[in-house]
Amino acid sequence: MSESTPEQRLLALWGEIRDITAAEGLLAWDQETYMPSGGVEGRAKMMATLAGVKHARLTDPELRDLVAQCEELAQPGSVAAANAYRARREVERASKIPASLTKALAEATSTALASWQEARAKADFSLFRDDLAQVLDLTRQEAAALANGGSLYDVLLDLYEPGATEADLEPLFAELKRELAPLVQQAADSRVRVDESPVKGQFSSAGQRDFGLHTARAMGFDFDRGRLDSSAHPFCSGIAGGDTRMTWRWQEDDLRPALFGIVHETGHGLYEQGLPPEWDRTPIGDTISLGIHESQSRLWENHVARSKPFWEWALPRLQGTFPSTADLTVDRMWPALHTVTPSLIRVEADEATYNLHIAVRFELERALLRSELEVDDLPAAWNAAYRELLGIESPNDADGVLQDIHWSMGAFGYFPTYTLGTLTAAQLFASAQETMPDLDEQIASGDFSQLLRWLRDNIHSHAGRYDADELVQKATGKALDTKPFLDYLQAVVREVYTS
Amino acid sequence: MSESTPEQRLLALWGEIRDITAAEGLLAWDQETYMPSGGVEGRAKMMATLAGVKHARLTDPELRDLVAQCEELAQPGSVAAANAYRARREVERASKIPASLTKALAEATSTALASWQEARAKADFSLFRDDLAQVLDLTRQEAAALANGGSLYDVLLDLYEPGATEADLEPLFAELKRELAPLVQQAADSRVRVDESPVKGQFSSAGQRDFGLHTARAMGFDFDRGRLDSSAHPFCSGIAGGDTRMTWRWQEDDLRPALFGIVHETGHGLYEQGLPPEWDRTPIGDTISLGIHESQSRLWENHVARSKPFWEWALPRLQGTFPSTADLTVDRMWPALHTVTPSLIRVEADEATYNLHIAVRFELERALLRSELEVDDLPAAWNAAYRELLGIESPNDADGVLQDIHWSMGAFGYFPTYTLGTLTAAQLFASAQETMPDLDEQIASGDFSQLLRWLRDNIHSHAGRYDADELVQKATGKALDTKPFLDYLQAVVREVYTS
Repeated sequence: MSESTPEQRLLALWGEIRDITAAEGLLAWDQETYMPSGGVEGRAKMMATLAGVKHARLTDPELRDLVAQCEELAQPGSVAAANAYRARREVERASKIPASLTKALAEATSTALASWQEARAKADFSLFRDDLAQVLDLTRQEAAALANGGSLYDVLLDLYEPGATEADLEPLFAELKRELAPLVQQAADSRVRVDESPVKGQFSSAGQRDFGLHTARAMGFDFDRGRLDSSAHPFCSGIAGGDTRMTWRWQEDDLRPALFGIVHETGHGLYEQGLPPEWDRTPIGDTISLGIHESQSRLWENHVARSKPFWEWALPRLQGTFPSTADLTVDRMWPALHTVTPSLIRVEADEATYNLHIAVRFELERALLRSELEVDDLPAAWNAAYRELLGIESPNDADGVLQDIHWSMGAFGYFPTYTLGTLTAAQLFASAQETMPDLDEQIASGDFSQLLRWLRDNIHSHAGRYDADELVQKATGKALDTKPFLDYLQAVVREVYTS
Repeated sequence: MSESTPEQRLLALWGEIRDITAAEGLLAWDQETYMPSGGVEGRAKMMATLAGVKHARLTDPELRDLVAQCEELAQPGSVAAANAYRARREVERASKIPASLTKALAEATSTALASWQEARAKADFSLFRDDLAQVLDLTRQEAAALANGGSLYDVLLDLYEPGATEADLEPLFAELKRELAPLVQQAADSRVRVDESPVKGQFSSAGQRDFGLHTARAMGFDFDRGRLDSSAHPFCSGIAGGDTRMTWRWQEDDLRPALFGIVHETGHGLYEQGLPPEWDRTPIGDTISLGIHESQSRLWENHVARSKPFWEWALPRLQGTFPSTADLTVDRMWPALHTVTPSLIRVEADEATYNLHIAVRFELERALLRSELEVDDLPAAWNAAYRELLGIESPNDADGVLQDIHWSMGAFGYFPTYTLGTLTAAQLFASAQETMPDLDEQIASGDFSQLLRWLRDNIHSHAGRYDADELVQKATGKALDTKPFLDYLQAVVREVYTS
């Protein structure tokens, strides 16, 4: 090894750490797609062992020394400096958390994932309660190790959205609640009753899959370097360079969950597939934050696939797949994609109320972390929050507190990144529109290549080189702002709900 | 850790090593079932990194010391002694092989697996040639590191069949060739032309899968603790306790490949599922040898699923699935499952010629390892051997030298275990029949539970505690012998080919 530079040696060690992350990713993907139920216990042990291996690698004194050397040697602003900076963040974080805790968390979350799946299937929170309490307790210990007496929530949030804080998010959610309430009210007060029949009916899962795959391919997803499988909760996982896994689910009586789910995950998948191969397995080689990741999925979902130009292209294909839609027009279809009605399931929520779902989770998980709320009281608190913020209540916990996978995975502080992503998506799309005045025509003709190129150039190709706020500034010339999203939403609600 | 005994500490370390093996197993399974083609390069790196991690764990001085302590402390003949013995074998083997070679082999075989798949699909050996040469070269280096100047072939064989040697196998294959030749001749000289129409026709893959799954379930395979997926080359992999993965493939015009393939893999799968849970993740917790593994698959395939009693139970179900078989009888079906005709594909070969396929590979891989045969000359040598031993020649390399996955995985010395398994299967089944005089009636009624119980008691429950030869002696009261297999085969050929 003596002939290699500290940078080369750092990258060699990092590549192996990334390989272990990739193995963890595949194990997690398999657990949610194909693993038989009997594999739960063994899988938890495998995950715990890999977490321990990774922790040992990240806390290896050789790596720490190399990071320090690289920081000293690298030109400020260079790729080498960015690699050293990203590596330092990971190394420091791992060093603060005892290996035993890392392993215990990996094992507990693997078990909790299985009990969450069962609890959700049976709509029985009690089956999940103990495992959730265990995960929460370990997550609190993890956060305490990182926080040095500071906010537990901030250090968890920072895992997913580097630099974001609880204090930044509070006014943001307050503003969204303030601005979204009148929009929701406007829809409710309107005499317009949106006709949802265009998206309702009987649609075979095979047909929906075919239509979704066609759309994903048209958007630019490369199925030689990725897959689509089914799972209880749709997700996208960039396992390794050239191997991006997406999942979906469907409802036979409604086109929207499957279609927008697939488009959403394809947005994530395109980000993964657009990462520079030359940075593969390096500290800056991965996506930068979950907020930016979500901006990619939301941009395609909300600003492309819910738009009129998109349906000018997509409708004939839909009609080819489902002859029952032969009489549909874009003008009848479009409002059905923009209904504003408080509903129970976050991932199927409309654009206006979606961020209220996030606000509920933001409040509840902060209360859990501060020990102001006990796990036993969580279902009741969930239902109370939905009553208050959205005016509805779930008839069972499966569509209530059990609907999301996140807490079973110990992912507290993750939900706000959805809202950051939604806001970023609107701002990015507005910039893309300014750059490409004929973007609507491109989309209407099924040509998504220039939009993808713009995203590749402005977001994907930078991978983890810049922080999220810097990336948004570079791409749009402005700091992140709620205005583009609220402008977009107000225009949509005005058009749909003005009779 | 100071409070734990050396044995407890050894088992804790071993459990993690087994977890890494399990992760490798899942990555390999995924590569052959679901991985997109773009994942090849990344997967090779992941496999190499995990191989490196495992090698480091196996060569950890703490582990070596613990093994020595455990050997000293353990009662001879105890489980603890067996664990120490198995662990020592692995530790010593790993210590002789440099980490760099382990990693290089993992990476090379992962790449070669992909090029083999492509070469096979395109029937073009040249696409595989370079990767095979690379794998062979690294395997030779590995064998040389282990052999201390002894036989390269023996140390590789020992990987799969502990204790077996080239010198033992030579007379064995000579005897089989001597005894099988007259049988094959007897079939060829007979005026009987077996009617294969009972198993020929048009059989949907869905129907074949359904029939195969039904059979696997009846045999006792637990699908809550396992799966069946499709792959180019059928295999069974015991990923972890409670997670056994089998694969299959099918031909629409012939029932046999899918059915006997599934029964075969289910035989392997039952062995994996029958390992004692209390020994999970310990040195003796896994299956003992590939010969014993193959004895389980062959026993179910040849002695159960090709038998008349089996078809008394299975035929009505087959007729329910495929109405075109409504007129079939067991007496018409049975000969079609016992044809003796030299054919090209090993995994679809008849019982009499199967071991001649193995003999070809045994000769060729020994020649490759001794550098008496170059990779470039392998296709020609393959074809020459088939001409000589079986009197046939493949029209292309896909059905010739490219038909098997093994060499792409660096598995030289593996093939003879198939023959050992075939012989062991016959000997075990003969013993089971002696113990259970009504075994035929049980099978005819679809009750496989007592046969499975016998295998659980005599083979599965011992996992890796005893060496293969000791296990066969315990189970059958005799050392392994060719007689039960030859007796079985002679009786079958006599009945089928006597008009």
